[in-house]
Amino acid sequence: MTDSDQIRVLVHRWAEAVHTGDLDQVLADHGDDIVMYDVPPPHRGVRGLAAYGETWPPFFAWQRSGAVFEIDELVVTAGADVAFARALLRCGKPPEPSATEARLRLTLGLVRRDDRWVVTHEHHSFADTSTPG
Amino acid sequence: MTDSDQIRVLVHRWAEAVHTGDLDQVLADHGDDIVMYDVPPPHRGVRGLAAYGETWPPFFAWQRSGAVFEIDELVVTAGADVAFARALLRCGKPPEPSATEARLRLTLGLVRRDDRWVVTHEHHSFADTSTPG
Repeated sequence: MTDSDQIRVLVHRWAEAVHTGDLDQVLADHGDDIVMYDVPPPHRGVRGLAAYGETWPPFFAWQRSGAVFEIDELVVTAGADVAFARALLRCGKPPEPSATEARLRLTLGLVRRDDRWVVTHEHHSFADTSTPG
Repeated sequence: MTDSDQIRVLVHRWAEAVHTGDLDQVLADHGDDIVMYDVPPPHRGVRGLAAYGETWPPFFAWQRSGAVFEIDELVVTAGADVAFARALLRCGKPPEPSATEARLRLTLGLVRRDDRWVVTHEHHSFADTSTPG
C-alpha cells in the first residue's frame, strides 16, 4: 500500500471505531502528543492522549442513540515523513441538518514514527451558520 | 533557514497581510488547489484560489474597523515535502471574548513545490460554546 492508502485505511478504521464506541481503536494510531481542536471548548485544544481519550465516551453515547459518523470525502496529502488529510463527514441524527447539507469538517496531521503513521493533530468543526459567509 | 522556520515566516507574513488587508500577500503562498474550511459556510469548504481570494475583502473591512488578528501560538511539523501547522490566534475586537480567552484555531496543510512551501489547505474555526464540552 502507498502511504496515502495506509492513511486512508487508518482514518476509515478510526471513524468506524468512533461510531461503534471502540476507545482502544480510536486511540490506536494517535501520539501521546496529540493536540485536538475539538468542536466544543477548550479554546486552546485538548492536549495529550489521556485528555483526548476522555473526550470520547459522551460522544459514543450520543452515537449509540442513533447518530451517524460517516466519511463523505477524504483527501490525503502524504509525504515521506509528514502527511495531512482533510475530510467531510456526515455527523448527526437523520434527518437533522447535520446529517444532510452540513458536514463535520476534519483535518488530521500525521507523522511517520517507527515505520507507521501516527496522528498528532486533529481539528474538528462545523461551519458557523450564524457568521455571515 | 530550516523548513520549519520558512513556514513560520510564511504564516506570520500571511497573518500580517490578513490584518493589513494586503490581498496579494494573503494569496502569495497559496496553491490554485487550496481548499479552506472557513469559519462560516460553505459546508464543503471554499475551493480554489479565486474563491479563496473572494472571501477576504469583507474580513479586511472588519479588521480595519478595529479588530486584531494576532498569532498567539504556532507549531509547525515539517517533513521533506509535506508539512502541517497548527495555530491559535487572537481574532476579534477588544475587549470581546474572542480577543481574550477564545481563540481562532487554525490548521494549515502545505506541500513543497518548485523549491518553496505552498499552502493547499486551511481550516479555521472557533470552539462552539453552545456544544457541551
